[in-house]
Amino acid sequence: MVPDPLSATFAALADPTRRAILARLIDGETTVTELAKPFAMTLPAVTKHLKVLEGAGLISRSRHAQWRPCRLDAGPLREVADWVEPYRRHWNNQLDRLSDYLRDIQAPQATKDDHDDR
Amino acid sequence: MVPDPLSATFAALADPTRRAILARLIDGETTVTELAKPFAMTLPAVTKHLKVLEGAGLISRSRHAQWRPCRLDAGPLREVADWVEPYRRHWNNQLDRLSDYLRDIQAPQATKDDHDDR
Repeated sequence: MVPDPLSATFAALADPTRRAILARLIDGETTVTELAKPFAMTLPAVTKHLKVLEGAGLISRSRHAQWRPCRLDAGPLREVADWVEPYRRHWNNQLDRLSDYLRDIQAPQATKDDHDDR
Repeated sequence: MVPDPLSATFAALADPTRRAILARLIDGETTVTELAKPFAMTLPAVTKHLKVLEGAGLISRSRHAQWRPCRLDAGPLREVADWVEPYRRHWNNQLDRLSDYLRDIQAPQATKDDHDDR
């Protein structure tokens, strides 16, 4: 089954090596050999990760230059940012509730009644 | 191998049903039966998705109420938002370049020579 594009993006991001490769490519395009350097990995193992990233449309490889540099295609990450946005308000609310709770349990007993009236 | 927390979050999000469950939980906690309703799925199939979400810390199930409602824990999604942030500038730059390119190819031939000199 072919996953929907957003699922393919999330699946591609579910690996620390692939995320590190994307982070490296923020600085600009580079070769597979350069990308492989920070990882204790064979070149075929890195190539496998690149294929997953390429399949998800997160990177592309130039067909013009002989060294076929990889470059970041950040478009699908915009979908990720758009998807996560509605949850921002939710976690801010959760933080507010936690903050209220911590204030309540730290408040002296004398002021507790005031809080109960809210 | 136990995945790192961010990888576990991304893996849990790599499924449209699980994302739909999270979206439903933005509105508030609810039962597994209610969550299952919009999907053409057996209850065990939905429960399996809930276990993945629970494993990634994206939902929790109350142990107090007998109906054990599910609720959203949006904390890990904050990590997702933080992770995607540095790529925002990158895709804005890509959009700017695309916009420049479209302007160039739409420009009258008379001005093309100027562009060729760049």
